[in-house]
Parts: sequence; C-alpha cells; structure tokens
Amino acid sequence: MTLKDLFAGELKVVNLGLTAFKETLDRCNVPAVQVEWRPPVAVDPAALAAVAAAGPSIDKANETAVKLILSGKPALVGMGKALDLIPGMKRNLLLHAGPPITWERMCGPMRGAVVGALLYEGMAGTTAQAFKLAASGKIKYSPCHEHGTVGPMAGVVSASMPVFVVLNEAHGNKAYATMNEGLGKVLRYGAYGPAITERLKWMENELYPTLKAAIEKLGKVDLKNIIAQALHMGDEVHNRNRAATSLLFRQLAPAVVRTCKDAGRAARVLEFINGDDHFFLNLSMAASKATLDAARAVPQSSVVVVMARNGTDFGVQLSGTGDKWFIGPAPVPDALYFPGFTKADANPDIGDSAITETAGLGGFAIAASPAIVQFVGGAAADALNYTRQMYEITAAENNVYQIPALDFRGVPTGIDVRKVIENDVFPVIDTGVAHKDAGVGQVGAGILRAPAEPFKKALVGLAATLRKSKVRGPIGHADTATEENDLVARRTK
Amino acid sequence: MTLKDLFAGELKVVNLGLTAFKETLDRCNVPAVQVEWRPPVAVDPAALAAVAAAGPSIDKANETAVKLILSGKPALVGMGKALDLIPGMKRNLLLHAGPPITWERMCGPMRGAVVGALLYEGMAGTTAQAFKLAASGKIKYSPCHEHGTVGPMAGVVSASMPVFVVLNEAHGNKAYATMNEGLGKVLRYGAYGPAITERLKWMENELYPTLKAAIEKLGKVDLKNIIAQALHMGDEVHNRNRAATSLLFRQLAPAVVRTCKDAGRAARVLEFINGDDHFFLNLSMAASKATLDAARAVPQSSVVVVMARNGTDFGVQLSGTGDKWFIGPAPVPDALYFPGFTKADANPDIGDSAITETAGLGGFAIAASPAIVQFVGGAAADALNYTRQMYEITAAENNVYQIPALDFRGVPTGIDVRKVIENDVFPVIDTGVAHKDAGVGQVGAGILRAPAEPFKKALVGLAATLRKSKVRGPIGHADTATEENDLVARRTK
Repeated sequence: MTLKDLFAGELKVVNLGLTAFKETLDRCNVPAVQVEWRPPVAVDPAALAAVAAAGPSIDKANETAVKLILSGKPALVGMGKALDLIPGMKRNLLLHAGPPITWERMCGPMRGAVVGALLYEGMAGTTAQAFKLAASGKIKYSPCHEHGTVGPMAGVVSASMPVFVVLNEAHGNKAYATMNEGLGKVLRYGAYGPAITERLKWMENELYPTLKAAIEKLGKVDLKNIIAQALHMGDEVHNRNRAATSLLFRQLAPAVVRTCKDAGRAARVLEFINGDDHFFLNLSMAASKATLDAARAVPQSSVVVVMARNGTDFGVQLSGTGDKWFIGPAPVPDALYFPGFTKADANPDIGDSAITETAGLGGFAIAASPAIVQFVGGAAADALNYTRQMYEITAAENNVYQIPALDFRGVPTGIDVRKVIENDVFPVIDTGVAHKDAGVGQVGAGILRAPAEPFKKALVGLAATLRKSKVRGPIGHADTATEENDLVARRTK
Repeated sequence: MTLKDLFAGELKVVNLGLTAFKETLDRCNVPAVQVEWRPPVAVDPAALAAVAAAGPSIDKANETAVKLILSGKPALVGMGKALDLIPGMKRNLLLHAGPPITWERMCGPMRGAVVGALLYEGMAGTTAQAFKLAASGKIKYSPCHEHGTVGPMAGVVSASMPVFVVLNEAHGNKAYATMNEGLGKVLRYGAYGPAITERLKWMENELYPTLKAAIEKLGKVDLKNIIAQALHMGDEVHNRNRAATSLLFRQLAPAVVRTCKDAGRAARVLEFINGDDHFFLNLSMAASKATLDAARAVPQSSVVVVMARNGTDFGVQLSGTGDKWFIGPAPVPDALYFPGFTKADANPDIGDSAITETAGLGGFAIAASPAIVQFVGGAAADALNYTRQMYEITAAENNVYQIPALDFRGVPTGIDVRKVIENDVFPVIDTGVAHKDAGVGQVGAGILRAPAEPFKKALVGLAATLRKSKVRGPIGHADTATEENDLVARRTK
C-alpha cells in the first residue's frame, strides 16, 4: 500500500493513552480504536540495576523459597481461643487485616468490625461507648499477619474468638483463622450490633466446642487435599468455596455426630455450615498463610509471601525482605455491585484473603472457576486468560494444585516481584466488596488488579537488602547454595 | 510437484480401512499412516426416504418431545420397598439392566447379580441352589426400564430392596432406583455371597429407614438443582459423582441428625455415604429416567428416550415407537483396565446408566468433567470435543444443565436418531467395566461409542410407524400441531 492509497481510503483513528480523545471522536461518529496501553512501571534505575546484577543469586534464592512453598502440607489440627493460641494476643489487642494501621486511618468497615468486636467482648455496653473506646488509645491494633493469623475482609480478631489451628506438617509452623460467619450482616464486612454479637456468641458457645471435638476425633483434616480436589470442582477457594466447604462438611459431619451428645446442637452446627458456602474460606486462607510463612526470610528471594489490604492501604511482603511492609493505596474494585449500590458506595480493597492469590489460588487459579468470571460478566475464556497471564509473574507451577481446563497444569505459584515490574503485569485478585461505611456490609464482588506502588517499593526494598548483603560478602557463590539447602533441610525437619 | 518428483522422493503409505495392511508395513519399517474412516452407515433406502419425507412433522414431534424433556423437574420425594412401589413388581420377579433377556443369554456379571439377589432374598441357601433356581424358570426376569426403574451395571432389583422414589414434578411420572452400594465387590458388578448379602441387609435395615426418615423431614430433594450445580463442579453425574454426592450429603446430614434417635446409626449412615463418591449415581439415573419417561410416546418423534445395555445386547427406544426395543450386540469397551486385567477379561457394555447420556449428561456432558478423560489417558481438549460432537446428534441444548468450560452452553439434549445415522456419529458413553465372569467385579472404566445396529433398526422402526400413521391420515398439518400442544399441556398439568 502506498501513502496515496492510505489517504484514498477512509481514515480510522488509533488512540493511545487518555480515553477522552477517543470519546470525543465517538461522539463525532469518527471510527476510532482505543489501545490498552500504559507506560512501563517507573522504578529507581539504581534499584533495577542492583536487582538485575544479582539475577542468578535471586533465582537461586527463589528456588529455595518455591521449594518451601510447594512442599508445604497444611492441615487443620485443632481449635482454641485466640487469647490462648495466637502469639502475642492480649485482651486489649485487636488484630486486623492488611498492613499496620491506626484507628484514625481505618476505613469504615474496619471501624465497624472493631466496634462489633468490642461489643462482642463486652468491653463496651453501647455502640457509642465502643466507638469511644476504640479511639481512646486503650485498645491496641496489630495486623493479623504479624501474629501468624489471617482474617477475611476487616479481619478483626479479638481475644475470646475461637480460631482454627492450621499446621504446616512439612515445616512445623502454624497459622490461625476465625470461623467464617456466613453471608449478610457479618462482622468481617463491618456490621456490628446485637444480631452480630449473638451470632458470634453462638459460634463461641456451640459451634466452636462441637467442631473442636469433631476435629480432635478426626485427628486432622488434610487441607491440601481438599484444596486440590476443590480446584477440580469449580472452586478457586477465594470467592468460590462451595466444593471445598462440601468436602470439609463430609469429613466433619460423621465426627460431629459421633462426638456431640446433643443431637439438636449437632444438627444446628451442620445446618450452619451447610448454609454457608464460604465456610471453607478462612481455612483456605490459613492453609495459604501456613504454606507461605515457611518460605519467609530466604535471603535475597524476590518471592512475595504476603499481599494484604486493610481497606486503606495495600501491603506486600517479600521473602527476602523480612517483616518489612511495602505499602500503597488500596484501589476501589471495579465489581458487580448488588442492586442499589455503585462503585461510589464501595470501600477500597480490604482483607487478608489475597493470601490465597499469593499462594497461587484465588485469582491465580480462576481458570478452575469460570463461574466467578461469568458472575462478573466475563466469559470462560477470560478465566483461562487471567490464570495464563499469572504464569508470566510467578516463579513456579504447583505440583499438587492443578487446573483441569488447562490440562491439569499446576497453578502459577510464587509471585516474583521482578517479573511483576518487568512485565508490567499485576496480580489478579478475586474479591468481595464492602460498603465504605461501618455497619452496612457487602455491596458486591469482583476481580481486580493489585496496585503498582507496593511492588515498586518492594523491588527497591529488595535492592537495599542486596547492597547490605554485598557488604557482608559476595553473593551467589557455593556457600550461599549450601546455606539455602540447609535452610530447606532445617525447615523440612 | 510432477509425477517424476513423486517417485524421486521417499514413498509413504496412507492406509484406509483394514489396519492389518498398516501393521504389516510397520513390521517392515515402511512409513505408513492409518486414516480413521468407516463406510457410511448402511440403512434400508426405503426407510431413509420415508423418514426424509416426513422431515417437518418429525421436527415438530421432536420439538414436543424436547419441551417435555427440558421442562422435567425430577425430585427425590421418598423411599420404600421395591415390592410395595415398583409397578408390576413381584416376589419371584427380578428386574435387570438393559433390554429383555433370558437367563440362558445373560452375561456372567448379570448372572452373578441374580444369584446375589436370590441369596439376599433368602430364596436360596447356597450359591449352587441359587444358580439352579435362577435357571429353573421359577424366577421371572424383566427390564428395569419396563417398570419405571433404572439400575447401574447388572441393575438387578429384587422385591425386598429399598428404592428411591423420584417424582417428575412437572409431569407427575415417577422413577425408581436402588441405593448405591459403593465400590469393590458389589452386586451391580456381579459379586455375590455372604459379604454382599450382609451389606445389602445393612442397607435395608439401617441405611434405608434412616434416609427415608430424613427425606420425609426434608419433604423433597431437588435433584435437578443438584445436577445443575454438580456440572459446575466437575461431575458429569455418570462416572463422576463426587460433587453431586457431596451436595446431597450436605442436605441429608442435618436431617439425618434431626430424625435418627440412634447417634451411632446416624454416624454409620453418614460414614457410608461419605465413603461412596458414587452414591448419587443411582439418583442421577432415576432423575434422567423420570425426565425422559415424560417424553415417551410422542407420535413420530425420532428422539431417543432409552439407551440401555444388559451386558449382551444394547437396546434403544424412541419416543415415537412406543415400548419397542431396537437391539444389537453390546460392544466390549476400550477402557483403562485395573492392574492385572485386560480387555480379554471385560464383559460387553452393561447397565441402565446410559440413561444419563440419553438425558444429555454423562458422556454428553463430559466437557464438564475433564478429570474423567484424563483418567483414561486423554486431554482436557478431548473432553470438550466429545461434548461438542454430541451437539451434532441432538435436537436441543439444555436450558438448566450447563457446561462452564463451553461458556455455560447447555448440554446436548435429546438424541435424534436421524442425526445419528446421517452424521455417522454415535453417542459417547462413560462407563465402568465389569469382569465377564460372575463374582469378580469391576475391572476398569472407559469411554465408548454406542453401537450402530440399534440406531439403524430404530430408524427403520420409526419409518414403519410413519407408514402406519400415513394410513391414519396426513402428517404435519395443523391438527397434529394442536395435538402435540395438547400433549405437552396434558403432561405438564
């Protein structure tokens, strides 16, 4: 085609960047195509260079981290009260989802959950008193993740709450999570008041002892096995837990009947779990947490071990950067909103549940769960594509968790922050959406992308540790490899 | 390329037809390719012409039949003893899978199941007595399908056996099936003897009354809903029933606890169901039977309402040809055989379970269940292709039963025998494989094609009814349409 031909034909516009240009042309009925394009993520060139230079030793560290993740064997082994089990738990301490946050910066639903927890604990008699106490400085706040714990949405855990104990049988570390309360007006979406307190009390006084006895009778419940099966049954164990809940229910029910002397209570317990298709969610989160915690603190590893949101900030932790949080503003999800609600009602992204994505489940495994994508208006092919894209930013494929529709390919596992930045591809996260005000509850569900900022900061943070380790000695030599093998061996004992 | 070039290069052989030619070349190391090709199905040209001429009125009849199928609402509504519930059941009558058959022509596993049933009924004290009685003429045999019943594999039903009652709530007809016994040495695979009798007695004396009471408490269990959900959860409800069994279990368990006074018994019942991932199979079959029976006897319809095998013959019934069976030899499945067994051990295809395929489930819905195809050595894409091909031979797509991996397309429903013959595409059937000898049990599982002969005969049979109806009056005019609407309305009441 010559230049003359080009101008002889009808002109079409290809627009790149700001959509406003295309929208103007649309209004004038001028054919125009919008190209999805963003400038590459800008990161401090010195940090990029440091990370690039350390490439082979980071790769080696990531191999170690991935081995630790893939060899994880999470199992439900018991239950107890938060105060008795969770490391560092105190009467006046409330754990919450995401990175650290003060009462002043807390979003509505997290404040609601805090108030709900204080009412449940009897530390405040009225809502007004609870709000006052929450802001008084007498109540301390700390991230679940810093106490071996994970909580969905607001993720508030208080001293009297019963928690599941999930043991990583391969590496000996434990993780904790409360029991799922079901749907509707629930604490984790920021609801509080008599109905919420009453349900939590029932969970404490009936559900908890009944399940505790059943789990003791069973000895343990193999969560890795249930998750692997559930991925073959349409769950990605974040926004869809119907199969996993069913498989758990099948194991628990006979043990409940054998251990619970009160048939009425046994029936109520079974009816409650049967009525909550998300009952398994908290266990899938604790299983993911127990799996990833074993891969913490591998020097130089660029593998992500935490993604978590508190409804204000989105936080990331890397294996190679210790307990440091890398933080940026949490995005407001584009979601399918329930009738009567819009994005204007939505709170920014909230919850520790992105620990499932961090472990290769949830949005990373959404190819296993096309029903979720359909629910938010997509096609089955979209689900496959989300998962396929996540292979671009992960260090490994899981050897146990598989996706039937991808010919049983292992789920993309071990987010490598280098690949995230280099490919400009951000983790896909399934999520429920909370109303931004305290006390309202869920307003929708959707699929979103993790924001760029925490990952950019994490890469810079990793570069900083590389400089430090350079001071200590050269990286990537034989000793380091030996040390890494020792690390795996030590943790695998 | 010129002819000279052709002979200058290396020659490769393309073989068509008998594979023996290619095998000889293989042995001589001559490159050869085998083309999969069969001559088109040969059917009496007069019959083909008659069916072609009646095309529009057959289409109309099929629309009616399909409406009746798609509007079906199968629900589990109760349980009782076969003798008390199944139409025409008698003490000295044994029902069996597939088309009619005499003791003399029965295959090994069906004879084994007959003997097992006589021992269970106490009609014979020893195996030898049971074989003698079975052959004596004192025991009558009749197909399950002729008594509103379906049975997997040998499908033997005797008077004392408890059966599920499945009501088609849309059309008022009922179907019956026994409870699934689990895997291993079980009656349906032709096993007999003390262990089998003991299990059947336990099912009669403990499992049955417990489930009967639970179902009464629940009022009903919506099987259509469970099947629809299970298709979203990796089941095709023929060879894979894990999800459907789990969903059924979730509904039954609380009701069992509420109605069974004996906690030990309740636990044993729940443990039995939890231990049998195929527990739902018999219900998926009865649901399919109840759904398809409503579409029987639509004049001129070429829709298949039964495919069933007795281990000797494969039988087909059409909506438009009344209770007539069209029969041909049952094929021996190509299957994945358990260690120690080969195709030489396998019995020809057996069981009423192909009623699931007839209803658009099982092999027709295998795209929902890639794990089955993987089990027999195929890829996920094979599963999609099996289902896609079944759209070529069906009259409709289901409005409730959907396949996530095909963007929630409805399962191919209502096999049109005309399309089967015209496209030379035969129904895909999932199946378990029984040992050919009585008393051995299951030796494998696989996917097979229905044989051609019953479908050829069915088309000829349909042509014969068209000639008869021509004698009665012209076909395809307005009156027929009115009659058909009346039929739907009458049955829908």
